[in-house]
Amino acid sequence: MSSIKLYNPGPVNVSTDTYQAMSSAMIGHRGSDFVNLYSDIHPKLQKLFGTNSPVYLSTSSAWGIMEAAVRNLSTKKVLNCCNGAFSDKWLDVSQRCGLEAESLSAEWGSPIDPVELDKKLSTGEFDLVTLVHNETSTGVMNPLKEIANVVSKYDDVLLVLDTVSSFSVVPIDADELGIDVVLTGSQKALALPPGLALFTVSDNALEKAKSTPNRGYYFDFLEFHKNWEKMMTPSTPCISLLYGLQHQLNKIFDEGLDARFERHEKLNQMVHDWVQLHEFNHFAPEGFRSKSLTCVANNKNIDVPAWIKRMREKHSLIINGGYGKIKGSTFRISNMGDESVETIQQMLEAITDTLEDS
Amino acid sequence: MSSIKLYNPGPVNVSTDTYQAMSSAMIGHRGSDFVNLYSDIHPKLQKLFGTNSPVYLSTSSAWGIMEAAVRNLSTKKVLNCCNGAFSDKWLDVSQRCGLEAESLSAEWGSPIDPVELDKKLSTGEFDLVTLVHNETSTGVMNPLKEIANVVSKYDDVLLVLDTVSSFSVVPIDADELGIDVVLTGSQKALALPPGLALFTVSDNALEKAKSTPNRGYYFDFLEFHKNWEKMMTPSTPCISLLYGLQHQLNKIFDEGLDARFERHEKLNQMVHDWVQLHEFNHFAPEGFRSKSLTCVANNKNIDVPAWIKRMREKHSLIINGGYGKIKGSTFRISNMGDESVETIQQMLEAITDTLEDS
Repeated sequence: MSSIKLYNPGPVNVSTDTYQAMSSAMIGHRGSDFVNLYSDIHPKLQKLFGTNSPVYLSTSSAWGIMEAAVRNLSTKKVLNCCNGAFSDKWLDVSQRCGLEAESLSAEWGSPIDPVELDKKLSTGEFDLVTLVHNETSTGVMNPLKEIANVVSKYDDVLLVLDTVSSFSVVPIDADELGIDVVLTGSQKALALPPGLALFTVSDNALEKAKSTPNRGYYFDFLEFHKNWEKMMTPSTPCISLLYGLQHQLNKIFDEGLDARFERHEKLNQMVHDWVQLHEFNHFAPEGFRSKSLTCVANNKNIDVPAWIKRMREKHSLIINGGYGKIKGSTFRISNMGDESVETIQQMLEAITDTLEDS
Repeated sequence: MSSIKLYNPGPVNVSTDTYQAMSSAMIGHRGSDFVNLYSDIHPKLQKLFGTNSPVYLSTSSAWGIMEAAVRNLSTKKVLNCCNGAFSDKWLDVSQRCGLEAESLSAEWGSPIDPVELDKKLSTGEFDLVTLVHNETSTGVMNPLKEIANVVSKYDDVLLVLDTVSSFSVVPIDADELGIDVVLTGSQKALALPPGLALFTVSDNALEKAKSTPNRGYYFDFLEFHKNWEKMMTPSTPCISLLYGLQHQLNKIFDEGLDARFERHEKLNQMVHDWVQLHEFNHFAPEGFRSKSLTCVANNKNIDVPAWIKRMREKHSLIINGGYGKIKGSTFRISNMGDESVETIQQMLEAITDTLEDS
């Protein structure tokens, strides 16, 4: 059994107290115990999403809801903003659902350009835009406000936002920015095991879903809404993860949102300082860098897999050796979840120690 | 926080040792730690499914795979065998996917008639049959062998079997019976928290999926297969539940399959004896009764909700007050999972004690 600490960008380390909460006695999902649980976590989730809309609980990874969003909301053509492994794949997934879909692409490592987006949308071809806020593969945080402002100009275009690796790390203001669907997963900054996706849907988007055919059942937004009205879920939910979520939300609000955002900023800065000290480059340009993870360009051409093997063996921890087509030419270090100045310091010392062996 | 013991037919009680296993340190899902975990549980799952086909892991409830099966495998018309809440709903779900679908119905409480099935299939209209082995809502176990034999006569018709509440309670021989998809969930007899579905797909069914359009991504059988070849999953899986599954499978094979089936038979008989002693009737006819739960007809017209409230308050346990249109006119008692003669005896004493207060 592994006991390697994870500094890859998800799944991240899960604290003992979270596992403890997840071990609460099982309950039925059609009774008051479940209603009480959902009712307790719901207002806290709304605050994190920056919305007054319902927050739904999906027993799936975030990909389930990424697929659901295009399936529920597009009857015309999807514009997938593509600038990394996950956003690129969203185009493929849209097409696999039988939908018309096209990409607005930027190079991996570059952000999506709001001006280019405006040009595309002005053709009138599209009814849905998908955007990955924080491209976990490249460490690029897209300019959300500028992009949301562009989409807001087009009344018939909905915006779906993946916040998988930015949620609870930086503020998300779904209502203020007029974002129609915001979705995230449990295994990143919430520091829960994987298996739970959370999402919110605007009134406009729910209305649109009503006229979209073949939505199916498991990921039908209208089913989520119908059950949400009773504080329940369409299918049997991942109850233990919801107990874990309740616990993590209590920790988040005990810490305070501002303090939490500042902590992530500070831990991220520690990693950035390490990058500079060791004369590595960032893969993402200044001003568009994630606060939850750092994607480092391997400009010193080190043997990344060998390095990770050494840190695993000597210090029982790992970072990530890059994703997809930039595997090896980049590496990624996460500062998400329950990490502290002490643990990030220990991790940086461990990776430095094994780097110097190179 | 609830600590009520659950004798409703799922989610069922989860043992402390299972929660302990679920608390194993988090691992990444794209490395050797995950491959080792999947590789360890896979042969044991094949044995329980009675198959040499791959067993796939879906981060969803069983409904996800029930929907996936019709979406991946029907291009002509689905025949949904309907004789309870869950099998009836499968027809609705098929239609919501935009598929042609029709029901072969039996009264709630009655089994599906293989002769009627044969008549339907002889029309040549159908390419897929769905069957719920053990209707959790009515306590009816359908005559699987007879039904599978009928479907086997038709080369172009695939059979999908839901074993949600029969899996690991009675033997399932997927290969011997020629069943194309067998699926189950984690929160019934496996005594894990909900959030994980397990399923197996025959070569014929995988081949059929290749020509089925708009399968999407999250539940695409071919994606499951492609990732299975590396002992991985298409999306981030519910890792903690898989550690729990590994633990439960070890317990199952330590007990021995025959001993496990016998234990469930014995515990089920204890409930049946209680039904007879207290002069209740069974909702399901003799010969078609589930071994995992008992659906009892409320022929004595007792106030079931009040009774359940009393057992909850006095003995901190509950049974279930009936499902869907037979709520109140039936009640259900589960003997699934990690229960023993002692715990079933205690439960029966507690429900008797509070019944007598009626």
